[in-house]
Amino acid sequence: MDPSWLDVAIAEARAGLASGGIPIGAALIGPDGEVLGRGHNRRVQDDDPSAHGETAAFRNAGRQRDYRATTMVTTLAPCWYCCGLVRQFGIGAVLVGEARTFHGGHDWLAEHGVRVRVLDDERCVALMTAFVGEHPELWNEDIGIVG
Amino acid sequence: MDPSWLDVAIAEARAGLASGGIPIGAALIGPDGEVLGRGHNRRVQDDDPSAHGETAAFRNAGRQRDYRATTMVTTLAPCWYCCGLVRQFGIGAVLVGEARTFHGGHDWLAEHGVRVRVLDDERCVALMTAFVGEHPELWNEDIGIVG
Repeated sequence: MDPSWLDVAIAEARAGLASGGIPIGAALIGPDGEVLGRGHNRRVQDDDPSAHGETAAFRNAGRQRDYRATTMVTTLAPCWYCCGLVRQFGIGAVLVGEARTFHGGHDWLAEHGVRVRVLDDERCVALMTAFVGEHPELWNEDIGIVG
Repeated sequence: MDPSWLDVAIAEARAGLASGGIPIGAALIGPDGEVLGRGHNRRVQDDDPSAHGETAAFRNAGRQRDYRATTMVTTLAPCWYCCGLVRQFGIGAVLVGEARTFHGGHDWLAEHGVRVRVLDDERCVALMTAFVGEHPELWNEDIGIVG
């Protein structure tokens, strides 16, 4: 897992923020470091509650026959929905930008054999800290927390 | 959980089959039995690996602020991806058409407080048994099994 892969996910998160959305980005990286798919949360832009960063990257990678040698890179610790995606499709590794502002199921993934690395990247922390401070209601909606 | 809600999911599964896809359908049902969203697997039709029956129904229901009184109805036992969706968004109940041809994470959901009911509906079993027999490679792709 190359930490520089996170740059792609951060670029996606920033693009999401610039278009009025929740700043979480992701990329699905292939065995040779190639970007198979990239995307960002689109709840706001598309009124689509199913479009998390990870699911958007997965979707944009198209149909793949074998995910074992792929890595899901995401700016924020994946929620249960996105962890379920990783487990079901056998994605081999997850590279997490930060798990300080949110903690989902990545420990559970590690228990089930997924290689997980958490970087604690300050750029990712700053993106989420600012957004959650300004739009707590949107963030709670995105993770199913009822206020 | 009204067993008749399954009819909506079965209609979706059959519509998916008729358009060349994998016959799994779902519906998100509201507190008063109203259909908030319905959909079917669209891997084949849209070349979209993220479009499972449950995620399609969830997406088509649009943004909801509180899922606790909703029920996800699905023709087939939900995979880990769709179970993660249910857990993250706090969907209160899952009505499963059948868990004979596939077993995902619905026991895990029950352990985490989701009300789960499995009907063992013969129509659902027949749909999946016929499809998996004819297209095993598509089915394996849809649940991330590498042949």
